[in-house]
Amino acid sequence: MLDLNSIKKAQKRLDGVIHYTSFSYAPILSELSGYEVYLKKENLQRTGAFKLRGAFNKIATLLENNRKGGVVAASAGNHAQGVAFSAKHFGIEATIVMPESTPLNKIQGVKELGANVILYGANYDEAYGYAIDYAKDRGKEFVHPFTDDEVMSGQGTVALEMLEVEPDLDAIIVPVGGGGLISGMGVATHALNPNVKIIGVASAGAPAMKESFDSKDAHGTKSVRTIADGIAVRDASPITLKHILKEVDSLELVCEDEIASAILFLLEKQKLLVEGAGAVGVAGLLHNKIDMPKGSKIGVVLSGGNIDVTMLSLIIEKGLVKSSRKMKLSVVMIDKPGSLMIFTELLKEVGANIVHIGYDRTSVKLEFGDAVVSVSLETKGEEHQNEVRAILKKNGFEFSEVQ
Amino acid sequence: MLDLNSIKKAQKRLDGVIHYTSFSYAPILSELSGYEVYLKKENLQRTGAFKLRGAFNKIATLLENNRKGGVVAASAGNHAQGVAFSAKHFGIEATIVMPESTPLNKIQGVKELGANVILYGANYDEAYGYAIDYAKDRGKEFVHPFTDDEVMSGQGTVALEMLEVEPDLDAIIVPVGGGGLISGMGVATHALNPNVKIIGVASAGAPAMKESFDSKDAHGTKSVRTIADGIAVRDASPITLKHILKEVDSLELVCEDEIASAILFLLEKQKLLVEGAGAVGVAGLLHNKIDMPKGSKIGVVLSGGNIDVTMLSLIIEKGLVKSSRKMKLSVVMIDKPGSLMIFTELLKEVGANIVHIGYDRTSVKLEFGDAVVSVSLETKGEEHQNEVRAILKKNGFEFSEVQ
Repeated sequence: MLDLNSIKKAQKRLDGVIHYTSFSYAPILSELSGYEVYLKKENLQRTGAFKLRGAFNKIATLLENNRKGGVVAASAGNHAQGVAFSAKHFGIEATIVMPESTPLNKIQGVKELGANVILYGANYDEAYGYAIDYAKDRGKEFVHPFTDDEVMSGQGTVALEMLEVEPDLDAIIVPVGGGGLISGMGVATHALNPNVKIIGVASAGAPAMKESFDSKDAHGTKSVRTIADGIAVRDASPITLKHILKEVDSLELVCEDEIASAILFLLEKQKLLVEGAGAVGVAGLLHNKIDMPKGSKIGVVLSGGNIDVTMLSLIIEKGLVKSSRKMKLSVVMIDKPGSLMIFTELLKEVGANIVHIGYDRTSVKLEFGDAVVSVSLETKGEEHQNEVRAILKKNGFEFSEVQ
Repeated sequence: MLDLNSIKKAQKRLDGVIHYTSFSYAPILSELSGYEVYLKKENLQRTGAFKLRGAFNKIATLLENNRKGGVVAASAGNHAQGVAFSAKHFGIEATIVMPESTPLNKIQGVKELGANVILYGANYDEAYGYAIDYAKDRGKEFVHPFTDDEVMSGQGTVALEMLEVEPDLDAIIVPVGGGGLISGMGVATHALNPNVKIIGVASAGAPAMKESFDSKDAHGTKSVRTIADGIAVRDASPITLKHILKEVDSLELVCEDEIASAILFLLEKQKLLVEGAGAVGVAGLLHNKIDMPKGSKIGVVLSGGNIDVTMLSLIIEKGLVKSSRKMKLSVVMIDKPGSLMIFTELLKEVGANIVHIGYDRTSVKLEFGDAVVSVSLETKGEEHQNEVRAILKKNGFEFSEVQ
């Protein structure tokens, strides 16, 4: 059963274990979007994501029913950490099945929480199938990441906390992957206040639930590809779709670039590390996907912060180029002593820092006696880049810009 | 006057303007350090740093005394933002003098808050001198970043908030630059509870206050160089030193590598973006600079989050190499078709992703017929790097590792 009662019971079980994460006004985002925006910081939750809530509630209810034989889950992400953390808390055994390609740091993270890890299969589906069989064969409990009433009830507690702090929200924006979070939150919210709009945001790279919502029929997609790995779900489940059709007012999609710019925005302006799945709500706000009257009071769930720093580094680098703080040029110059000196003198004059340089005189596109220099520059913004362009042109350098 | 009364008055002035930032338990840091650690998240403060508190309190008291002619400050950092924000709030004029080399985004940040910006001088001292004269000539009020009782009283409010949430702290760790924050917090803390230890942490690249603390005599250093630009203060002030000698129990130094690793730790484990100056307390904890009985309850101030993402990207890249998630190799191979294929096949076999590659056959150190390949790899940790080393050795590749 998923209802206000099951969600309130979950809240009691979670009390004292999870962080009551802050839900606070975001001035810059409010000004940019034209709404009154509040952010629920589940990226600061223990294990770095809301998923702990559902996993913990599920395992707590198993123990209440004296099912102590251990739990099994299939996940390389936040669900795995939530299950491992909760099993450790209760002193029962957890086995997590992960695809063979899982990065070592994710495996270690779960092992540090005391769980057994089995690496199986080339992808999530194969790991998932193995985990189901493994649990069945050994009489253990399989903990599904979303199609489970106790899991969804746990996730619903996020809405209780938000409405406790700000009872007069006009809308809540929730990331959508499998749909467990938005199902639980939708049920909780509408039981307390039927007027609050529930708006889902999914990744355009994993649109199964959006397509199922539009057609009112659960189906899957051939493949998923998104930096929001926490919501990269291939097949929509009829169980969560049923709740979503009932509780959700609109479901929007955001693309990869929009997610990346939201991650960078949250880092630079909010000082928060948020993973792709956690940033889709802000991506929707920043890119005008949210259709609410201006001035509406909107709560946005930042669902998690478990993004690999390697990926973050890439997002920063690409973001720097897009926001004119990095500039890549390919410059043709005469292949003789002094050419590069003149070029670097000009860059010094306008204060552009060289962070990478390459020199090639063998390209067949070049005239004999010419060379091409590839250079990456740190710049201070669009105006500064125009200065770089102007001084190079004025001094007769031919160049093209690389994106 | 700087005392509990002036700090409590400051708290009233700040009420409703600043964020009451969260001060919460940090489980991972507690486990690693052996203390019970709580983090005060002033990086999530409006303008991204605690500096707003002091600037706002100072400007509020100026207006209470009917001095409405406008304010002047010298700063390219958090103090500039605090002054600009506060002046805008009260509708008075603010002029910020910044060194000529100030990055455009810092200038824009202050301009967006409605302040006038004057670029002057090759460094902070020149900008500071100009700002003092500018204020004097025009009958405006100069707002010093720390040697001012109202500024220090504002900063002291951080301690009131921390002790309100956790009254039984054993120690508070505070970043030290000019010393305004630790002076205000020390006075506030000891007025409420004389038993709380106040521990300062400064950057080894800006040790003026540490040296002055040790010799009990305020003096300066020839130069400062640190990624913690928010505490890169060259000369210790006798005004703050007097408070520090009275209130501070110990003052420790952390080096650049320790600060960088603390920034990365806070990002990955706490999901928080914290600038260098804001991370020195955690650097001190992670690198055993804090001498308190194990199990002590310690509050750490994360003083700000305004770090340039370009710098962050560098910290991540270097951190990846240090934590074995990136590996740079220089590999000698026979300069013929197929060599590179064999090499890349081996890397594929162990699952190491190539993110940069260079090929050179002209180095005089090479035998004729040999080439050297420089390659950057993404790896999963030390164990994975050992696999890379083993497979290359087994297949007869000579290589060296580049740090």
